[in-house]
Amino acid sequence: MAMKKKPVTGMKDILPREMEIRDYAIGLIKETYKTFGFTSVETPAVEHIENLSSNQGGENEKLIFKVLKRGDKLTSSVRKMIADSDDPEFENVLMPDTSGLTDSGLRYDLTLPLSRYYSNNANDLPSPFKALQMGNVWRADRPQRGRYRQFMQCDIDILGEPGIIAEIELILATTTLLGKLDFSNFTIRINDRRILKAMAAYSGFAERDYDTVFIILDKMDKIGLDGVKEELLKEGYAEETVEKYLGLYEKLVGNDAESEAKVSADDKAKISIENIKSIKETLGDYLDAEVSENLSTIITSVEGAKAADFGISFDPTLVRGMSYYTGPIFEISMDEYGGSVGGGGRYDEMIGKFTGQATPAVGFSIGFERIVMLLLENNFQVPGTGSRKAYLVEKNMPAEKMQKIMALAKQERDAGTIVNVSIMKKNKKFQKEKMQEEGYTEFVEFFSDREF
Amino acid sequence: MAMKKKPVTGMKDILPREMEIRDYAIGLIKETYKTFGFTSVETPAVEHIENLSSNQGGENEKLIFKVLKRGDKLTSSVRKMIADSDDPEFENVLMPDTSGLTDSGLRYDLTLPLSRYYSNNANDLPSPFKALQMGNVWRADRPQRGRYRQFMQCDIDILGEPGIIAEIELILATTTLLGKLDFSNFTIRINDRRILKAMAAYSGFAERDYDTVFIILDKMDKIGLDGVKEELLKEGYAEETVEKYLGLYEKLVGNDAESEAKVSADDKAKISIENIKSIKETLGDYLDAEVSENLSTIITSVEGAKAADFGISFDPTLVRGMSYYTGPIFEISMDEYGGSVGGGGRYDEMIGKFTGQATPAVGFSIGFERIVMLLLENNFQVPGTGSRKAYLVEKNMPAEKMQKIMALAKQERDAGTIVNVSIMKKNKKFQKEKMQEEGYTEFVEFFSDREF
Repeated sequence: MAMKKKPVTGMKDILPREMEIRDYAIGLIKETYKTFGFTSVETPAVEHIENLSSNQGGENEKLIFKVLKRGDKLTSSVRKMIADSDDPEFENVLMPDTSGLTDSGLRYDLTLPLSRYYSNNANDLPSPFKALQMGNVWRADRPQRGRYRQFMQCDIDILGEPGIIAEIELILATTTLLGKLDFSNFTIRINDRRILKAMAAYSGFAERDYDTVFIILDKMDKIGLDGVKEELLKEGYAEETVEKYLGLYEKLVGNDAESEAKVSADDKAKISIENIKSIKETLGDYLDAEVSENLSTIITSVEGAKAADFGISFDPTLVRGMSYYTGPIFEISMDEYGGSVGGGGRYDEMIGKFTGQATPAVGFSIGFERIVMLLLENNFQVPGTGSRKAYLVEKNMPAEKMQKIMALAKQERDAGTIVNVSIMKKNKKFQKEKMQEEGYTEFVEFFSDREF
Repeated sequence: MAMKKKPVTGMKDILPREMEIRDYAIGLIKETYKTFGFTSVETPAVEHIENLSSNQGGENEKLIFKVLKRGDKLTSSVRKMIADSDDPEFENVLMPDTSGLTDSGLRYDLTLPLSRYYSNNANDLPSPFKALQMGNVWRADRPQRGRYRQFMQCDIDILGEPGIIAEIELILATTTLLGKLDFSNFTIRINDRRILKAMAAYSGFAERDYDTVFIILDKMDKIGLDGVKEELLKEGYAEETVEKYLGLYEKLVGNDAESEAKVSADDKAKISIENIKSIKETLGDYLDAEVSENLSTIITSVEGAKAADFGISFDPTLVRGMSYYTGPIFEISMDEYGGSVGGGGRYDEMIGKFTGQATPAVGFSIGFERIVMLLLENNFQVPGTGSRKAYLVEKNMPAEKMQKIMALAKQERDAGTIVNVSIMKKNKKFQKEKMQEEGYTEFVEFFSDREF
């Protein structure tokens, strides 16, 4: 059978230049998050199909790479599937149910595996538990430029802490990291699921309609207030309800994006606190006072202790896709990228699905692949890679001289110099030029008939 | 559907204590191998089923986790499978061929993906190319203690270099790393596939029997010379051939293991050089002189430039499982472990299978999981983890004071201290005891009614 040279559809081979940046970013992430008291964890790439299909993953559950059962289990599942087939004539075979063929799949995110991990190991873990998880996830998405079917995720989560200290720590850790990677001028947009719900309830929407309403609200960025109004009316909601709902947003999000960009970070925080206050006053008993106070405290604490040049801003239109969020939600907007490069929120009910016992949880995920892409585009130089030296060794060097060369290389490597020992090629000039492109600045030549 | 708390069969959740060692080892591996001029690469975890089933993987090809096709492709494959089924009555369904259901699988090693990677990207890579690849691989092996179905591999390979400078660099890089991880007293056993073949040819075995003969020879460690003889005779080989074959080994491996352990590293190298000389004299034209000379040069060069306390020793009984090896082969034996903790060799013909053009290649893989296990058993302490401080914060701290606490934490974190900010629990004494177990040595308490 002919061997295939390209990677499988939608996945990629990562070349050395990108790997250098990835390795550097991974090292920096671990180092930075560790100073915040996070500890690394790892879960298997393969997860039970029952867990992956438990309605925690939203749209991602449609994108699972499923793993075929093995051995006798596959045999009996295939037999059962064929026996259950309703067209024994094989002329117009109806599609049988293939779900019996698989017992597991590749994880589509790190949150679900972490919840399983915590429920499986809680007795051996501190409480609260501050987890750092980096690893690949897989989604059988339609392949498109810059989006791959295997990609790295990088999540920090605090499990077992009900208070907003968890949110503050997550936001500070993430923004400190972005600062160390030379990102600036980004904005942390923050909201609370309970504010979203209170605004909908206050306006007269029924609880069963919230998800639909929020999906439309989520488009505010792209289609504006008028567009949102149009779509809500098209769904058949009462005009009065829609008007009341959008009236709440009008005074908060009236500023167009351009004027917003000119607001200083300090003012963003101040305006946010004012807006939260005003929302609470309007919503009255629809909104628990603790929710708005906590949101203000998060904003004040982050603004006062931040380690990078960014703003934090209350955004009542922020929805975040996943329905498992229960409290504060947040997202990183970066002008350079024009989209989100990370986000997260509180999901107090997921772990209880495993344990039967509610465990507060909040997480923040950075878009590792997007960040690497931005660093590559900005021609980011990995700092402190040390000097690179090439030893060019004449072919057929006798054993005792080869020994000496390797001992010399050892001395320099021990001192941290990168030493690449290669056989001298016929076209030495070309060889050196190529190595210079790789960053080798110094060349030492060894000949068998010369002393060294 | 009930959620499953345990990981899938044969895979494991990795707890913080082990992760600390893994993260440290991964960092050290990258750092060390980089000083030898290796650059990181990454290949997807999912590989074409055609490549995984191309007879490069030996027994591992029976252990592939196969990925189910998706969408229309799955539909038509299932229809075809059912239509092809030879028992339309569904009464005693014969097992149909399920191979059409899968288009890919999880990689079982890193060598095959690297060969594909190189053939796909050679134009963008230096020549020779020194690759470092770390990543998980998956094998649906029978679960057993200490062996998992997902495990990390860590390979260095030099592609495009025909000379033994590649073998020398690989062995020095690997042993330097093991030395940095505080391992000593291990032995690099080295042999050459062409010596194995020459010894078999000299003794009168037919080429088609080599693989069977080598598999039996590989058991020398366990069953000794007499055991090997018995099994060879049982296979029906002529007594004269078997006698001649084992006569070659008798004088080389006659020493029992105990006396061998007492031989100094320096003497091991000297004895090896003598043994190689003697083998060459006996085999005459059956063995190319370059093969034995090169093996001696590798041993001399490694012995003279080594950075750790270990021996390198010619072992004519070393076989290595994979049939793709074409030249020198090597393995790390560690007394502490009682088995191999790594190995590799030259495989000059694999990349040609993709490109149609032979490309010399040699690789060395360390048994990452075994090394981590040994470090855990030896209670290895990760050096320089820095001091750990816990801030215990009274519940419901007002915003402006919370801001101050986070700013204090920032200062200390910037200076490299690990600062864990937590809410003070009712049972503060117990909380501190638990945190001490995690390595927190200093505690700072913050109360809302006190100045700080």
